[in-house]
Amino acid sequence: MTAGLPRRLFAECLGTALLLAVVIGSGVMAERLAGGNVALALLANTLATVGGLYVLIEVFGPVSGAHFNPAVSLAMALRGELAVAALAAYVAAQLLGAVLGAWLAHAMFDMSLLQFSTKLRGGVGQWVAEAVATCGLLLVILRAPPARVAPMVAAYIGAAYWFTASTSFANPAAAFGRMFSDSFAGIAPASVPGFVVAELAGAALALLVHRSLGADSRDD
Amino acid sequence: MTAGLPRRLFAECLGTALLLAVVIGSGVMAERLAGGNVALALLANTLATVGGLYVLIEVFGPVSGAHFNPAVSLAMALRGELAVAALAAYVAAQLLGAVLGAWLAHAMFDMSLLQFSTKLRGGVGQWVAEAVATCGLLLVILRAPPARVAPMVAAYIGAAYWFTASTSFANPAAAFGRMFSDSFAGIAPASVPGFVVAELAGAALALLVHRSLGADSRDD
Amino acid sequence: MTAGLPRRLFAECLGTALLLAVVIGSGVMAERLAGGNVALALLANTLATVGGLYVLIEVFGPVSGAHFNPAVSLAMALRGELAVAALAAYVAAQLLGAVLGAWLAHAMFDMSLLQFSTKLRGGVGQWVAEAVATCGLLLVILRAPPARVAPMVAAYIGAAYWFTASTSFANPAAAFGRMFSDSFAGIAPASVPGFVVAELAGAALALLVHRSLGADSRDD
Amino acid sequence: MTAGLPRRLFAECLGTALLLAVVIGSGVMAERLAGGNVALALLANTLATVGGLYVLIEVFGPVSGAHFNPAVSLAMALRGELAVAALAAYVAAQLLGAVLGAWLAHAMFDMSLLQFSTKLRGGVGQWVAEAVATCGLLLVILRAPPARVAPMVAAYIGAAYWFTASTSFANPAAAFGRMFSDSFAGIAPASVPGFVVAELAGAALALLVHRSLGADSRDD
Repeated sequence: MTAGLPRRLFAECLGTALLLAVVIGSGVMAERLAGGNVALALLANTLATVGGLYVLIEVFGPVSGAHFNPAVSLAMALRGELAVAALAAYVAAQLLGAVLGAWLAHAMFDMSLLQFSTKLRGGVGQWVAEAVATCGLLLVILRAPPARVAPMVAAYIGAAYWFTASTSFANPAAAFGRMFSDSFAGIAPASVPGFVVAELAGAALALLVHRSLGADSRDD
Repeated sequence: MTAGLPRRLFAECLGTALLLAVVIGSGVMAERLAGGNVALALLANTLATVGGLYVLIEVFGPVSGAHFNPAVSLAMALRGELAVAALAAYVAAQLLGAVLGAWLAHAMFDMSLLQFSTKLRGGVGQWVAEAVATCGLLLVILRAPPARVAPMVAAYIGAAYWFTASTSFANPAAAFGRMFSDSFAGIAPASVPGFVVAELAGAALALLVHRSLGADSRDD
Repeated sequence: MTAGLPRRLFAECLGTALLLAVVIGSGVMAERLAGGNVALALLANTLATVGGLYVLIEVFGPVSGAHFNPAVSLAMALRGELAVAALAAYVAAQLLGAVLGAWLAHAMFDMSLLQFSTKLRGGVGQWVAEAVATCGLLLVILRAPPARVAPMVAAYIGAAYWFTASTSFANPAAAFGRMFSDSFAGIAPASVPGFVVAELAGAALALLVHRSLGADSRDD
Repeated sequence: MTAGLPRRLFAECLGTALLLAVVIGSGVMAERLAGGNVALALLANTLATVGGLYVLIEVFGPVSGAHFNPAVSLAMALRGELAVAALAAYVAAQLLGAVLGAWLAHAMFDMSLLQFSTKLRGGVGQWVAEAVATCGLLLVILRAPPARVAPMVAAYIGAAYWFTASTSFANPAAAFGRMFSDSFAGIAPASVPGFVVAELAGAALALLVHRSLGADSRDD
């Protein structure tokens, strides 16, 4: 990561856009083809996300760190791995990218660009699930050997699509971007704040657990 | 593994809890979405388990060895790779984690926390299958090059979910924890002893086969 | 890549033939077995393509670079990594291989060898999708660490089968070869020019984005 | 491979047995659960085979080379990588293991041990497919970098289950063992000779193609 800030922000914006295009686009494709078989649709959505996420982290990691996620950037800032001055810019780039990614998916599938999800997501179980999902994601990122971050994060999210009741958004920028898509992967605007609070709580928990587990394996 | 025992026990407990949350949670999600298509439900359950297991072993391996399984800890103690004094504590941490993981899955899916499975599992075929499943798992663990233990164990369990008639519990702690979940991945309490005996027999067989195959590739 | 040009052309032709045999053959098998369940058919088609592509790139990469794709060869020529004199031969070998691969698939599935697809594919969304798909593919190829090109390209294409509305041909030779197969993976001849233009536009965009992202990680 | 011949034969026999147990066992499980959805059954059968094959090659490779396949042993003998004196013993161990593996699968699924398949497989397309499947497998084995043989072979077979019309036995021992199972993965005894001839033809073709492609990347 010797790239200058503008380049890193470009990478965060583009990478987050492509991540959202993968998540939303594969959700649309899966829903269209699956004919009401929701398990099959989620399976296809999962595999596309796993493959896309793995590649995006490998491609953009050397430029910006490949956060694509305000909870990750915040944790990195708290740990001193991201300058606090860069944090707000990272988050803005991620949120912008998330919306652009939703629109890119809509453009590819001949859907109207501007739309808002009507899918309500919430309740105690969902919020616990989002906290667990984000806690697990941060733990993976904080403890993975650098050379295996990409496959580990991708595999984790693939599992979390199924073992958490919320299908693991685990990312405030993803929640923000999915709000703009009235499709399989969408989330109603009114449900976003609950998800984001749960995600930030999960990230905070991850920092505690990481410290409890002792010596950072990344520093080995 | 230079961590102190309390840290290692914390890792075993947390890792086993997350493993059970992955197995049970993805089973609940899959059953809910699959609308009676059991093959599709098991496929989703398999892929989530493979991804989750890979990540959990990579994350917790450097701290505690990532056994998450009394049969593995017992084999390691017999081989002198785990202090006998630590064995009982490891097993207790795994059993506690397994129950907590079941409860975490239930919390995420808005199910009542305390429940017991009513799914009877047993008979000669199932017991042979559990012995084969556990024998294979131990063989993989004993012979895998250290750097590839995580993907190999994950891939093996993914295969064993399908090629063994018992869907490969291969883990007394998993059998114990799944007893507390009246869901897709559950096992009735009365069926647990048969599974555990078969698993321990399989583990013993693995130690014999491992010796017959000669020089431990892990020591190369 | 110290092999002489004839050997490299043989590798490009054979590799592209096998790639098309994988894509078309698995599409035929999937369509036959899936009984109208298109999502399931595309899922099987995707997994076969991912596995096949990974292996073909690993096997033929050391001989010819494993382009199998005129858009890739063109980009490599523009970057000075493929002699301009070799470019036309590479493309010819790829196009020839693509047709032979379609015929090989037909021979295996007892279908008449010579056939033309009647499946029209086009419209703004499909063209945008092809441009995005090819842009992403080139970006992966241009920025992947050499040792990880094969798994990254395979994972990317697996994701792109689902997140792009066009199921990601991302390859003028693939479009050319699929034209000769009236099956699941086919494309009507009249639809090929639109796809090829979109693919070349996407490749051009990738070169721009690659430059904007700065220092080539492959040169690190 | 410094192990003595008895140990290597034990490894070939046990490894081939487990491979057949994986292939047949997962086929039985998939057929039982899939309720007539053949595409879904083959998908599960594929994923179990991919995972199992990857692990078996990693585990037994250092002991015996993990051929599990007379066509592979024959090719290795022709190349001077397996003593001709050991060839017959390798093949016998593989054939014995294949039958034992079928019986192990039957034992786990409470089926009668001794049975013969009634599933006829043949015709020009199937034979071409078997030749292509085996040619591809040998090419992968001959050209893969040693450290990546296991994932490459596993990925290749996963693709070949779908892109070849025969679902890619690609192994005379597998054909022999599957003959003893009247289940999803079975093959009628009368169909075995045709498959074996096609497989050996494919292996011979692979040796030619391998030579045509020039310097053995394994020797680099």
